Amino acid sequence: MYSFKNDYSEGAHPRILQALIETNLEQVEGYGTDSYTLKAIELLKQKIGRKDVDIHFFSGGTQTNLTALSAFLRPHEAIIAPSTGHILVHETGAIEATGHKIISVEVTDGKLTPDHIKTVIDGHTDEHMVKPKLIYISNPSEIGSIYKKAELEQLSQCCRENHLFLFVDGARLGSALSSKENDITLTDLAALVDSFYIGGTKNGALIGEALVICNEILKDDFRFHMKQKGALLAKGKVLGIQFLELFKDDLYFDLAAHANEMANLLRNAITTAGYQFLTDSPSNQIFPILPNSLITKLEKNYSFYIWSKIDHNHSSIRLVTSWATTEDAVMAFIKDLNSAL
Amino acid sequence: MYSFKNDYSEGAHPRILQALIETNLEQVEGYGTDSYTLKAIELLKQKIGRKDVDIHFFSGGTQTNLTALSAFLRPHEAIIAPSTGHILVHETGAIEATGHKIISVEVTDGKLTPDHIKTVIDGHTDEHMVKPKLIYISNPSEIGSIYKKAELEQLSQCCRENHLFLFVDGARLGSALSSKENDITLTDLAALVDSFYIGGTKNGALIGEALVICNEILKDDFRFHMKQKGALLAKGKVLGIQFLELFKDDLYFDLAAHANEMANLLRNAITTAGYQFLTDSPSNQIFPILPNSLITKLEKNYSFYIWSKIDHNHSSIRLVTSWATTEDAVMAFIKDLNSAL
Amino acid sequence: MYSFKNDYSEGAHPRILQALIETNLEQVEGYGTDSYTLKAIELLKQKIGRKDVDIHFFSGGTQTNLTALSAFLRPHEAIIAPSTGHILVHETGAIEATGHKIISVEVTDGKLTPDHIKTVIDGHTDEHMVKPKLIYISNPSEIGSIYKKAELEQLSQCCRENHLFLFVDGARLGSALSSKENDITLTDLAALVDSFYIGGTKNGALIGEALVICNEILKDDFRFHMKQKGALLAKGKVLGIQFLELFKDDLYFDLAAHANEMANLLRNAITTAGYQFLTDSPSNQIFPILPNSLITKLEKNYSFYIWSKIDHNHSSIRLVTSWATTEDAVMAFIKDLNSAL
Amino acid sequence: MYSFKNDYSEGAHPRILQALIETNLEQVEGYGTDSYTLKAIELLKQKIGRKDVDIHFFSGGTQTNLTALSAFLRPHEAIIAPSTGHILVHETGAIEATGHKIISVEVTDGKLTPDHIKTVIDGHTDEHMVKPKLIYISNPSEIGSIYKKAELEQLSQCCRENHLFLFVDGARLGSALSSKENDITLTDLAALVDSFYIGGTKNGALIGEALVICNEILKDDFRFHMKQKGALLAKGKVLGIQFLELFKDDLYFDLAAHANEMANLLRNAITTAGYQFLTDSPSNQIFPILPNSLITKLEKNYSFYIWSKIDHNHSSIRLVTSWATTEDAVMAFIKDLNSAL
Repeated sequence: MYSFKNDYSEGAHPRILQALIETNLEQVEGYGTDSYTLKAIELLKQKIGRKDVDIHFFSGGTQTNLTALSAFLRPHEAIIAPSTGHILVHETGAIEATGHKIISVEVTDGKLTPDHIKTVIDGHTDEHMVKPKLIYISNPSEIGSIYKKAELEQLSQCCRENHLFLFVDGARLGSALSSKENDITLTDLAALVDSFYIGGTKNGALIGEALVICNEILKDDFRFHMKQKGALLAKGKVLGIQFLELFKDDLYFDLAAHANEMANLLRNAITTAGYQFLTDSPSNQIFPILPNSLITKLEKNYSFYIWSKIDHNHSSIRLVTSWATTEDAVMAFIKDLNSAL
Repeated sequence: MYSFKNDYSEGAHPRILQALIETNLEQVEGYGTDSYTLKAIELLKQKIGRKDVDIHFFSGGTQTNLTALSAFLRPHEAIIAPSTGHILVHETGAIEATGHKIISVEVTDGKLTPDHIKTVIDGHTDEHMVKPKLIYISNPSEIGSIYKKAELEQLSQCCRENHLFLFVDGARLGSALSSKENDITLTDLAALVDSFYIGGTKNGALIGEALVICNEILKDDFRFHMKQKGALLAKGKVLGIQFLELFKDDLYFDLAAHANEMANLLRNAITTAGYQFLTDSPSNQIFPILPNSLITKLEKNYSFYIWSKIDHNHSSIRLVTSWATTEDAVMAFIKDLNSAL
Repeated sequence: MYSFKNDYSEGAHPRILQALIETNLEQVEGYGTDSYTLKAIELLKQKIGRKDVDIHFFSGGTQTNLTALSAFLRPHEAIIAPSTGHILVHETGAIEATGHKIISVEVTDGKLTPDHIKTVIDGHTDEHMVKPKLIYISNPSEIGSIYKKAELEQLSQCCRENHLFLFVDGARLGSALSSKENDITLTDLAALVDSFYIGGTKNGALIGEALVICNEILKDDFRFHMKQKGALLAKGKVLGIQFLELFKDDLYFDLAAHANEMANLLRNAITTAGYQFLTDSPSNQIFPILPNSLITKLEKNYSFYIWSKIDHNHSSIRLVTSWATTEDAVMAFIKDLNSAL
Repeated sequence: MYSFKNDYSEGAHPRILQALIETNLEQVEGYGTDSYTLKAIELLKQKIGRKDVDIHFFSGGTQTNLTALSAFLRPHEAIIAPSTGHILVHETGAIEATGHKIISVEVTDGKLTPDHIKTVIDGHTDEHMVKPKLIYISNPSEIGSIYKKAELEQLSQCCRENHLFLFVDGARLGSALSSKENDITLTDLAALVDSFYIGGTKNGALIGEALVICNEILKDDFRFHMKQKGALLAKGKVLGIQFLELFKDDLYFDLAAHANEMANLLRNAITTAGYQFLTDSPSNQIFPILPNSLITKLEKNYSFYIWSKIDHNHSSIRLVTSWATTEDAVMAFIKDLNSAL
């Protein structure tokens, strides 16, 4: 049984564990003030091409989102998110638990546009309603789509005109930025948004996300917020060491590119076999629409999520690839798919 | 420069990293539903001698405290804690951020007694004040003292008589239970308190704390609370594997006993050298009172915290030992101490 | 200029002020423990026909909603509400500010059905999502519709089967229960729901809402929650005296019936004049669809809200009547409407 | 039985009710945007001598405190308050429920000094602790003492030097400013503090407190916070009309002066009778220390709180006077006191 259920089934890329071993017995400062973490921050700043951003490491995505968003907002300020947004659906109300409403915008492709935002802004006119203040998007979205640079620029401009912060959930940012359709760089991202995070857990790290704060007014006292939310690890170096390893020679992007290639192999084979997809996804998650009978056959050797019912005889499934997905497994899946026809 | 500043300076015990490597590429379920985590839970239940407790793994102590205490309490219910309590002083208001007041009880030895509790209860008489509902203690306390079984029994009885939950912060529980003065077992603990946690981060783990919920009425829906607070790691197996390794042959207690022995060597030598201690600490943190001139000399080769000013010429310092503290370093410190006299 | 903008434009019914004057200089206990408040509670219990409900007085609707709902729920539990629900739209995220997510269900008539609820329940399957626990409805709804007894019975049964609390926002409950289409009594309400409130502010009181808690398990320590949210008035008798006056001879229902009659006069005349309505509203809010040119003429002598754009030439407006609306004003409006044709 | 238990036993000063009656049937705008409220705001600005302050009306003190303090602070920021502070003791954790820690400073006279503040600031050095940001004081304090102008100036300077906000709980501000020992004006107050409130409930109003925000950076979006906390009354005019009446000819200060005079009569008589006081209180609350036998006798005809046990035979009691306290009642108490000797 091979799993295409998610991109966090395995542990870390071997180089990550090796780095942890090599530095294991050194005595260092706690809570992310150690030299490895400081070096990782410097390295990420170089990769982003900006010395004036702040960078903080977290152990998971929900923790990153809830800490950052609650730190960035005053109590009456709300978030606008696409209806597929992870914080809206799959974080057990973590944001609302910090006191903030999320305004959901119905989308079909996982992405927000300036028109969506303007409609919400127009509908929030006085103090009897929350004040929209932060735009939450994910890149890639939770259904695999990615933002093009022109789209992000339009969003960015809309946000600035309306005094809104723009935040990017980058749980799978590596996959987006390594996609063949991508035209956005880390430097673009830092220029266009107020804050984003670079997901490590789903791209080779054992655990770890790197939050980048670009907007000066969001930086103050951020470590207080981290400590208050339980996000400052005593052995903070565990996170720093991993990001140092992931970015010192672009391992991070290589791993993401591999995941995308594996997804691409699957996509091409499924297309060739004559099937459609629920969404147009150029990243490491794809959503083919298959006959239920075929799904049942595939489930014998592969695990994956059944995403949605399409009609009486068809469903969409979600296939996720990762840095650890082997080409052998992908080829076996394709072979089984074709032989089942 | 050798550090006695804390017990989280180094990484993990080598066996922990080895266990992570061995299981690294297996595909497992996410969010702590993998077989390693389930085995770790079973193993801990065996060690505790109770099948009916619930066990959940966290990545840090503040996260454990804030998730558990906010899950256990209704909005108007408050916590009683000794004035030295970690949640009162060093967690950036994490508990209050979840909406709950902590009532501080002035103590000198880091420990609460039934009399303390009764005084608070007597002073909280109606709905204009919060309702005390949970007693927070740490074992060992933040200043190194430990609870004897008789003391814990009295606290437990007081709590049951007053419908209070009793919670033990066990960030350094290994050190307490491995202390030569200790007469409490894990089984005792589970019988006497409503919930406690077994700290891994400060005793050999890379990261990790194991929360044990003994009281049936505190168990419901606990994973919802974890997810909401950002505490459910996607790669939850990282925590399970560590606890499995720490407890499969009592490595956990061996490491704590080593830390205590190192502290004991220091304590004896300092006593022999004619110095007093701020507190009576039979665990891995000791607080000798030394002349400032001696402290200055020791600071050349050793790092540690200066804890408090005693008089014009003396201060207390905090020396912390751990599983990783070497006897060589301890002997060197003692030698330097004696030669500085 | 006569206002049909809302039902809180005027002060209190004269009998309310008279009651306040008559009792003004008596010395009584504070915080709602005075004899007037206790008598008002007894009287309401009689009207409801239940001795075992708890009753608490508040100064406003948002305060009632946020105090009750946050007291009734644990942190991970969420509310299901129709998309028109007041707590979703017009309370500035008051519920989310207490930490709870509200799940919005798209509705056209302002009302929830068991099917809506089941769909939400089916979609919330594990700890990565909030746990739906409380159903919020308003009677009448924010767009004037009311629940029939059979509908409420179905909702009630659905809630019990799914372990959900059912809560009714009764900001305009008088209007619903006095509607000619209504077949629900206060006794029915207390039997079918877990908690509801009887709105005073919009039906003759100066300020005041009476929360009724029917479900035993929601009653504990409720006054603690009120105090914590700033809802316990020092001069609590101000609220008790008003409800005593409103209910001692059914003044409350008489006032609501008057408001409904005034709305009915308007509705009939507008229908006769050939216009349609946005919603079928048998309560004190009606939403006629009028030509924009007619609206402009009416705005010269009457104030009201333009509710929504219907097409290029038509809009719906909201006309609200109250205990204080005079038949003269209604007749003048009708005359102006007809003469404008 | 005459009550000296508190200053909210009676309703409102008759002129207040008269003003409510006179304006009762006028149709006005809701939520505090009516002409009466606007006039009350202008009048208060005149009395304060500042056009640039913002003023908002609330229905109670706890509601005012929790709304203002949570609006003024970011999540990691904490409040410093004297141990007697109302928010620390008698508001059921209302402030903590909004997420903020209150740091208690042990005081004997109910008042904070710059030394207290500096000690707390010195002890809060990094992100592992909350960040003190707002100083909460009450004038008069909860035990009757008042601040002199020089003391307030020192506090103000200390706050500005340390980037702290200074907030004054003025639940009984009338009594403080009308005390014979007072040398502070409303204008002084607005110049020296960042925000304060003028309590109406305990000085002649039916309900009502007026929050004054002096510091520009605390003003933004304040009505959003009010709505979110349930503090915006639909019939907001009820509050505005009362403050308009209280301040249009200094009724507010006349009422407070009367209360103080009544307390003064009691104080002088008790002093003459040879008794001491727990605190030096020049406001409308006094705390005489009396023999328990005398207290028992007085309790036959008067109700009051027994404040604290002094020794085996003596206790302190609290006597509170108000605008409604009659000289007859005071004289009767004094007579009974003397005849009981």
